[in-house]
Amino acid sequence: MLVMMKSHATADEISAVCRKIELMGFKAHPIPGITRTAIGITGNQGPVEAAALEALPGVGECVPVSKPYKLVGREVKEATTIIDLGDGVRIGGSEVAIIAGPCAVETREQTRAVAEAVAAAGAKLFRGGAYKPRTSPYSFQGLAEDGLKILAEVRRDFGLRIVTEAIDVESVDIVERYGDVIQIGARNMQNFSLLKRAGRSSKPVLLKRGISATLDEMLMAAEYILSEGNYNVIFCERGIRTFADHTRNTLDLSVVPAVQRLSHLPIIVDPSHGTGRREKVIPLSRGAIAVGADGLMIEVHAHPEEALSDGNQSIQPPEFRQLMAEIRQIATVVGRTVSPEPADIASRSTIQAQLLQ
Amino acid sequence: MLVMMKSHATADEISAVCRKIELMGFKAHPIPGITRTAIGITGNQGPVEAAALEALPGVGECVPVSKPYKLVGREVKEATTIIDLGDGVRIGGSEVAIIAGPCAVETREQTRAVAEAVAAAGAKLFRGGAYKPRTSPYSFQGLAEDGLKILAEVRRDFGLRIVTEAIDVESVDIVERYGDVIQIGARNMQNFSLLKRAGRSSKPVLLKRGISATLDEMLMAAEYILSEGNYNVIFCERGIRTFADHTRNTLDLSVVPAVQRLSHLPIIVDPSHGTGRREKVIPLSRGAIAVGADGLMIEVHAHPEEALSDGNQSIQPPEFRQLMAEIRQIATVVGRTVSPEPADIASRSTIQAQLLQ
Amino acid sequence: MLVMMKSHATADEISAVCRKIELMGFKAHPIPGITRTAIGITGNQGPVEAAALEALPGVGECVPVSKPYKLVGREVKEATTIIDLGDGVRIGGSEVAIIAGPCAVETREQTRAVAEAVAAAGAKLFRGGAYKPRTSPYSFQGLAEDGLKILAEVRRDFGLRIVTEAIDVESVDIVERYGDVIQIGARNMQNFSLLKRAGRSSKPVLLKRGISATLDEMLMAAEYILSEGNYNVIFCERGIRTFADHTRNTLDLSVVPAVQRLSHLPIIVDPSHGTGRREKVIPLSRGAIAVGADGLMIEVHAHPEEALSDGNQSIQPPEFRQLMAEIRQIATVVGRTVSPEPADIASRSTIQAQLLQ
Amino acid sequence: MLVMMKSHATADEISAVCRKIELMGFKAHPIPGITRTAIGITGNQGPVEAAALEALPGVGECVPVSKPYKLVGREVKEATTIIDLGDGVRIGGSEVAIIAGPCAVETREQTRAVAEAVAAAGAKLFRGGAYKPRTSPYSFQGLAEDGLKILAEVRRDFGLRIVTEAIDVESVDIVERYGDVIQIGARNMQNFSLLKRAGRSSKPVLLKRGISATLDEMLMAAEYILSEGNYNVIFCERGIRTFADHTRNTLDLSVVPAVQRLSHLPIIVDPSHGTGRREKVIPLSRGAIAVGADGLMIEVHAHPEEALSDGNQSIQPPEFRQLMAEIRQIATVVGRTVSPEPADIASRSTIQAQLLQ
Repeated sequence: MLVMMKSHATADEISAVCRKIELMGFKAHPIPGITRTAIGITGNQGPVEAAALEALPGVGECVPVSKPYKLVGREVKEATTIIDLGDGVRIGGSEVAIIAGPCAVETREQTRAVAEAVAAAGAKLFRGGAYKPRTSPYSFQGLAEDGLKILAEVRRDFGLRIVTEAIDVESVDIVERYGDVIQIGARNMQNFSLLKRAGRSSKPVLLKRGISATLDEMLMAAEYILSEGNYNVIFCERGIRTFADHTRNTLDLSVVPAVQRLSHLPIIVDPSHGTGRREKVIPLSRGAIAVGADGLMIEVHAHPEEALSDGNQSIQPPEFRQLMAEIRQIATVVGRTVSPEPADIASRSTIQAQLLQ
Repeated sequence: MLVMMKSHATADEISAVCRKIELMGFKAHPIPGITRTAIGITGNQGPVEAAALEALPGVGECVPVSKPYKLVGREVKEATTIIDLGDGVRIGGSEVAIIAGPCAVETREQTRAVAEAVAAAGAKLFRGGAYKPRTSPYSFQGLAEDGLKILAEVRRDFGLRIVTEAIDVESVDIVERYGDVIQIGARNMQNFSLLKRAGRSSKPVLLKRGISATLDEMLMAAEYILSEGNYNVIFCERGIRTFADHTRNTLDLSVVPAVQRLSHLPIIVDPSHGTGRREKVIPLSRGAIAVGADGLMIEVHAHPEEALSDGNQSIQPPEFRQLMAEIRQIATVVGRTVSPEPADIASRSTIQAQLLQ
Repeated sequence: MLVMMKSHATADEISAVCRKIELMGFKAHPIPGITRTAIGITGNQGPVEAAALEALPGVGECVPVSKPYKLVGREVKEATTIIDLGDGVRIGGSEVAIIAGPCAVETREQTRAVAEAVAAAGAKLFRGGAYKPRTSPYSFQGLAEDGLKILAEVRRDFGLRIVTEAIDVESVDIVERYGDVIQIGARNMQNFSLLKRAGRSSKPVLLKRGISATLDEMLMAAEYILSEGNYNVIFCERGIRTFADHTRNTLDLSVVPAVQRLSHLPIIVDPSHGTGRREKVIPLSRGAIAVGADGLMIEVHAHPEEALSDGNQSIQPPEFRQLMAEIRQIATVVGRTVSPEPADIASRSTIQAQLLQ
Repeated sequence: MLVMMKSHATADEISAVCRKIELMGFKAHPIPGITRTAIGITGNQGPVEAAALEALPGVGECVPVSKPYKLVGREVKEATTIIDLGDGVRIGGSEVAIIAGPCAVETREQTRAVAEAVAAAGAKLFRGGAYKPRTSPYSFQGLAEDGLKILAEVRRDFGLRIVTEAIDVESVDIVERYGDVIQIGARNMQNFSLLKRAGRSSKPVLLKRGISATLDEMLMAAEYILSEGNYNVIFCERGIRTFADHTRNTLDLSVVPAVQRLSHLPIIVDPSHGTGRREKVIPLSRGAIAVGADGLMIEVHAHPEEALSDGNQSIQPPEFRQLMAEIRQIATVVGRTVSPEPADIASRSTIQAQLLQ
C-alpha cells in the first residue's frame, strides 16, 4: 500500500501520516518525489485499512501496490533515483557514472598507479576489493582493513569516490568507515542478513546481480535494503551463467531497460566480469552505454598478467582511456554525457607514464 | 591444411594446385584474399602430405589449420567477407545492413505496406517468412510459394533485397528462385541435410544461431555450407535460451566480437527474436550496432496486435524510423554508416501514411 | 475438440462421424480406448460446432481440449499407448524396453559382436546409427544404406528389433524399409518437415528430446507426428544443456513422470547421451527405471576406445550384462519386468567371448 | 601436499609431523583413514619442501595434490566419511539417512504432528527451518530461537536428530546449541564467512548445492569448512536452475556418482526442492536411492495447503510412509538399507491419526 500525499502537503502532515502508520503496527517509508511525497507501508500481512489514512490532512489517495516489490518500484517513485556522492559525482543522473580500478587492492603502488590513470581518463569513482570472496579458501582473500586504508588514500589524493565490497555483516562496519559506496557481490545477492545490515547503513549500496538471479529476485534483494531504510541502491548487471562458453558469463544487456521500466533505481553494467575476456570489454562497454546503462564498472590493471585475481578480464590504462573516448561519443547519442579528461591531463599523463614504468 | 599461394601466383598456378589436390582424393576450396589466395583442403581423414604441394609453382607454404573449422576461420581468409547483393547492397562492408519486415507474409497489402515503410526509412533488405516453422502443427504455417510471389513483387516495386526462410531441402529449391538471401532458422541450425543443400545454392545464406548453440557449433554449422562450395554465409545472433524470464530469450551481444575474431564471415543481430519484447527492440538495436554488428534484422508490422505470429516483438513503422535515426548516429561512432532515408522520402511518407490507414 | 463415442458405438457409427468431420473441412483422428473410442478433430482454426456432431448416432459428447496439444494428451486417450513390434516385443507395457547397441554401425563384425552380446544379456531391441548427424562436416557420417543392410542381418540373425535414425525426409524412405522403429534425433526434434514425413510412416517413431526443449515443445513435436496419422511415438529423454560441466548433458529424470502425467505415449531414457560418461551409465540407468521409465537406450561397444563416435559414453558387454541384472531387480520394485537372459545364454556367451577376442 | 603416514605410525609421530608443519608456517589437518593417517597441509602459497617432512619418523611419503580441493578429495581419504550422530544414527554408512519434516517450524502442534508421523515411518532425522531465507523481506522469516526450542522438544520426545538451517554467523551460534546438524542453504553455498564459521563448529554441516553451482564450486565450498577443522560435511543435491519449466528446478541425480567418485564426503538428495512438485517427490526419491545417494531430505507437512512456505512441494504423512516403503525395496538392490518402522508402529499410528485430525 502506498499513501500518495497531495502536492502541497506539509512536512507536518507527512509526519503525522507516518506516525499513524506506525501506530497501526506497520513501518512507514516516506519517499519524496518531484511533485509529491509517497509513503510506502511495509510490515503488514494483509490489506491495510485505507479509510483511516485517507481521512488525514494532506493525504491524496491510498493505492495498492500490484508487485511483490514495493519500495523499489516506479509505482512509489516515478523519477529515477539520483545518488549524490558530493562534488558533482552522481549515479543515475545525465552523466554516466564510470567506476574503474583493479579487481583487488594488492599493494599501495599498484593501486595508486591505476587510480592516477583512471582519474586522468575522466573516471570519478574507483573500485578495488579489500575483501575478496574467492571460490578457493587457499586463494588470495584481500588485504582487509589495510587495503581500505590504501583506498582512503586514493580518495584523498585523487579525489575519486571509493566503491568497495563488504562480504559479511562484520566487514560492512569497516567498509562504511572508509568507502563511499558499499558493494555487495553477486554471490551475496541473496545473503539476506548482509542485505539487511547494508539497509541500515548511511552509505549507498551497489548490488550486483546474482549469477543466476531473475529480474524479480534482483528487485526483491534491493527491496531488503530499502525496507530497512536505505533508499540508495544501484543495480549492477555482471553477466549470468549459461551454457555459452565463449565468455565466462553471458552479459545480459536487456536487463538494463527491463530494470529501468520497473524500478526507479539506477543500473550500471560490469563488462569485465560480464565477459571475463579483456578484448570484449570495450565493445560491450559501448553496447552497455548504447542500451542506456547509467554507468559502467571496469577492471583496470597496469600489469594484468601479474594480477592476483581476474587478470584475464582487466584492461590496461591506455585501453581504458580509449574506452572512455568511445563511450563519450556513444553517450551523446542517448542524451547522456561522460565526464571529460581533467584539464591537467597532459601533466598527469606524464606522472602516470612514470608510475607505470 | 591450407595452401597459401604466393601473392603473384597466376590463375593457372592456382588451378594446377587445385587439380593436384583433387587427384590426391580431397576437395579444394580456393579462397581469394586481398594479397593472396588460400586453398582450403577438406575431405582428408589424416594429415595431408605437404611436400607434394609445396613443390608446385606459385605455392608459398602449407599451413596446418588449428581449429576444427577450416573454411570459416580467419586463418584461411583474413579480410572480412563482404556479400554483394548488387546495386550497392552489401552485408559485411562499412555500411551496416538493415533487414526489416514482418515475421510472416500474411497478405499482399500487409506486406507491401511494411515494405513501403521500411524502404522509406532507409532499409535495403526485406524480411518476411513464406515458410514458418511453428511449435504447433495447428498454427499458421505460411503462404508458401504464394508468399514468395508477394515478396518478388516487393523486390520489383521497392527495390528491396529479399531475405526469406527455407525450412527443408524442398523449400530451398523454391526460395532460391524468388529470394536474394536464404534464411536458415535457429531450429534448423544443425539440420545438416538442409545446410548441405544450402551449400550447393548460388544464393547467400543467413544462418541463425540455434537457441542453445555454442559458438563452435555455430561456426561448424557454417562450415557445412562452405564445405559444399557456398562461401557466402552471414551469421545471425537471435538470443539464447537461459533461465532469465524478463525476455523471451537472452540476447548474447558478446558473440558479435567473438565471431569477428575467429571468422571472416559477417554477423548481424536480431533483437526482435532476441528479446521477444517490442519495447526492448530499439535499445538493443543501439547496443548491437555499438558492439560492432554488421547488421540488424528487425520485425516490423503495421498492426502488431493483428499479426499471425510474433506480434509481441514487432515494432511499428514510426518506431522503425526512429530506430534507424538512432543507429545512424551510433554507427558513426564505430566507423560504420547506415543508409539514409531516400531523397523522395517526403512523397513516400505520404503514400505510406495512406497505405497504413 | 474431441468427440467421445458411446461405449457401444458401432464401427459404422464411428465412420459416419469421421465422414461428417471431413465434410466440415477438418481432419478426423479416431483413437480407440479401452472402453470407448475418441475422435480427435484437427485442422480447425476456431471452435467446431458441437451440435452437428452430438446429433449423430453413437456420439456421447463433444469435449473441448484444454491443452495446445490434442492427440498426444491423456484427455484423448487415458490408457498408456503400448507399441507392439511383434513376437512379444513391446514398448510401453509392463516389460521395460531395452534398446542397446553401438552409437554407429561401423563394420559388420563390430555390429554383430555387440548384437550377440546384448541379445545374450536379454535386450530385445538394437540401436545403431547408419546416418549420423555430426557437428563437423569432416566427421564420420555413417555407412548409410550399407549400414542398414548390416542392421537387417542383425534383425534376422539375432531376432532383435532395429531402432535407427533418419536424418531427413529422404533417409526416412530408406530407414523405414530396413528398421522397426525410426529414430528422430535431438537436433531434429523441431525439424517439422521430418516430423510430418515420419507421421506418414507406418513404422513407430522414437522422438528424442531436443537439447534445450521444454516439455511442451516436446509434446508439440510429437503432435506433429500424430496429426499426420502415426499414433505410435515413443519419447526419449537424453539430457539437456545446462551450465553443469561434470556431465556432457544434464539428465532430467523428472521429465519421465511429467510426460506420463500429461501424455499416453511411453517415454524411455538414454543415460549414455544423458551423461556422456561411461561410469555414470549404470547408476543413472538404475535411477531411470526407479523413476518409472518405460525403457532404456544404451550405447554398447566392444572396444569403446576405438569407436568412431561417442566412445566415452559407451559401456562394454560385461558392464551391460551387469546393468541388466541390476535393473531387473529395480524393475520389480516399480511393478515392471526386464526380460531375462535367453535360456541358451551359456552357449551364446561362449560365442560372444570368441567374437570379442 | 599430503603427508601419508606409515600404517604403524604412532600418535606421537603424527603429532610431531603436525607440529613440524605448523612450525613451517602452515596448517596441518590429520585425517585418519582405515589403514593409515593422511595429514593435509593448507596455507602454503607455493610448493612445500617435502624432504624436511619425509625425514621424520613414521612418515611414509609426501604426495602432491592434483586437484584444487585438498581435504575433501578421495586422495586424502579413500574411505567414505561416516558421520555418527549417536544411537546408531549415521550419515554415509550402509543405512540410507532419511531426513524428513516441514519446510519451516510454524507451531508446536504442526511440528510435533509431523515429527510423530515421520518417526513412525522410520525416519531418524528431522528437518524444519527456524531461520528461513526468503526472496521477499515481507514473507514469513521463521520463528528463530522459539522455533529451535520446539525442535529441541522434538529431539527429546521422538528421538529424532535435528537438521536445521543457519543463515548467518550469528545464527550458527544459536543453531549449534539446539541442533544436531547445521544446514547451510543453497543461497549461502558461497557465503564464505558463514562457511568458515561452520568450519569452526563441532556440529556436522549439511551443505546444499547452490542453484547454479558447478561440481567444483560445491567441492570448494566444502573445502572452506574442512580447512577450518570441521571434517563432517554432507553434500545435498537440491536441483539446479535451467530453462526447463515443468519442475521448479532440475534435479541433477548425476552429481551423486560424480561426488562419490571425487570426494569421501557423503551426498544426499532433496527431491522436494529439486522438483518443487509434490507428485514428483516419490518417483525422484526412488531414483535418488537407485543412483546411490547416501540419504534423502523430504518435506512433509500434515496440511500442505496451509503451509507458510513450500506447500506445493510437501507431501503428507501417508505419502511419506509409502515413500519409505518403496525406497526400502530399492535400497536393497544397491546394497543399502532403510530403517524399518519402529515396532510400536501400530499404537503410534493411532496417536498420529488423532494428531492429524
